[in-house]
Amino acid sequence: MSVQVTGISGIPLIQKGDDLPAIICRNTTFEDEDILCIASTIVSKAKGYTRALADITPSPDALRISGLTKEDPRFIQAILDSSTEIIQEYPFILSEVPCGHVGVRAGVDNSNIEGENIIILPKDPSAECREIRDSIKKITGKNVGVIVTDTCGRAFRRGQCGNAIGWAGMTAIRDFRGDHDLFGLELEITEEAVVDEIAAFSNFIMGESNNGIPAVKFSGCGTWKGHDSLYFTKEEDLIRKAMKR
Amino acid sequence: MSVQVTGISGIPLIQKGDDLPAIICRNTTFEDEDILCIASTIVSKAKGYTRALADITPSPDALRISGLTKEDPRFIQAILDSSTEIIQEYPFILSEVPCGHVGVRAGVDNSNIEGENIIILPKDPSAECREIRDSIKKITGKNVGVIVTDTCGRAFRRGQCGNAIGWAGMTAIRDFRGDHDLFGLELEITEEAVVDEIAAFSNFIMGESNNGIPAVKFSGCGTWKGHDSLYFTKEEDLIRKAMKR
Repeated sequence: MSVQVTGISGIPLIQKGDDLPAIICRNTTFEDEDILCIASTIVSKAKGYTRALADITPSPDALRISGLTKEDPRFIQAILDSSTEIIQEYPFILSEVPCGHVGVRAGVDNSNIEGENIIILPKDPSAECREIRDSIKKITGKNVGVIVTDTCGRAFRRGQCGNAIGWAGMTAIRDFRGDHDLFGLELEITEEAVVDEIAAFSNFIMGESNNGIPAVKFSGCGTWKGHDSLYFTKEEDLIRKAMKR
Repeated sequence: MSVQVTGISGIPLIQKGDDLPAIICRNTTFEDEDILCIASTIVSKAKGYTRALADITPSPDALRISGLTKEDPRFIQAILDSSTEIIQEYPFILSEVPCGHVGVRAGVDNSNIEGENIIILPKDPSAECREIRDSIKKITGKNVGVIVTDTCGRAFRRGQCGNAIGWAGMTAIRDFRGDHDLFGLELEITEEAVVDEIAAFSNFIMGESNNGIPAVKFSGCGTWKGHDSLYFTKEEDLIRKAMKR
């Protein structure tokens, strides 16, 4: 298997109302089964999922946490507003967001945006992926898989990696259960989180800071079978249980 | 940036004593700055980092944990022998291994090996990478980065992804601290775990079970600056602290 991975250059600074699929299609070509990874930042900016700090009034909880983290209480309030469950408050807020993703500061971001504004994650990133996939189909006639990515820290390991927070046109997990190993032993527990593996490498191509490559195309990944249960339920999640204890 | 990612086919079942770099170089060509990802399984098999279950006598601790996990007590003993710190015993052993990696069952593997034998992780995977890198340089004259990968579960998210457990010819982390975002704001905390992002996608190309593609070549990744502190110290590691509490 050989896969070509290409950073899509030429994408301008995205503004609210911009037609992201049209802009991307002007800067690359697609074939059926290509996979497009898009940084959540530009999805949120195109859709206007941003907030002005001046419009936010911090709650007593936000003021209390802000005393611990030394961050702007309005920024903390935006994180609380974006979260469905707070797992840890300090030294940084770790929380679950509506789609099931668990991330630092609920993915609320004050970088790569003008002035005293913040970017918040799309509430339903997979719905955004389906919409982008449908638009690309209309523009190009091609069936393209779409992944929305965000960067996250990890347990036990320093540094951020790209994660998938939404996807369309593929399953999140490639499921090998029932397959056999090289010696015929049946594999019982092998579920591979392929959307995260693809998102991770797309983040390598995007880079960070001022690179300005918020979209990456994968050609040649093929297809797979599996399921979409990417997130542990609270009952299954041993690490969440330990942190809430 | 455009990167070509190629699964290296034609690698036979690896036996103890096999010259892995020579076998890989017979099945692909390299250019300077290419990155080669190799599954830890074949590094361990080539070097004889395997054990026969029949040779292992379980300790009282292994017998006690085996009563909880319902796994072979000799298999549990091999995990304990491979671990420097046990973080969790049940429902599966989660532990640190000598190189600093934290993984399920210390990476001890009873799949893809003949008979009642198990594969254990290399004790110093980065030393294995340096050796492979040096051998490839001797054979081809090319400077190739090398990553040894293993598959691991994650916090909060279902499914395994490829992780880097050793590397040579690059730094583990690409360090953007001091860089500026698109609007000139200085980035304070962006350290990107690029070896894990590359290892993750190599695992997608390798597949699991019976694919038989244990090595993947990346061409066009370029170079970066950073550091090698991929693992949190115990003091920094909030999740480990919560699990040990």
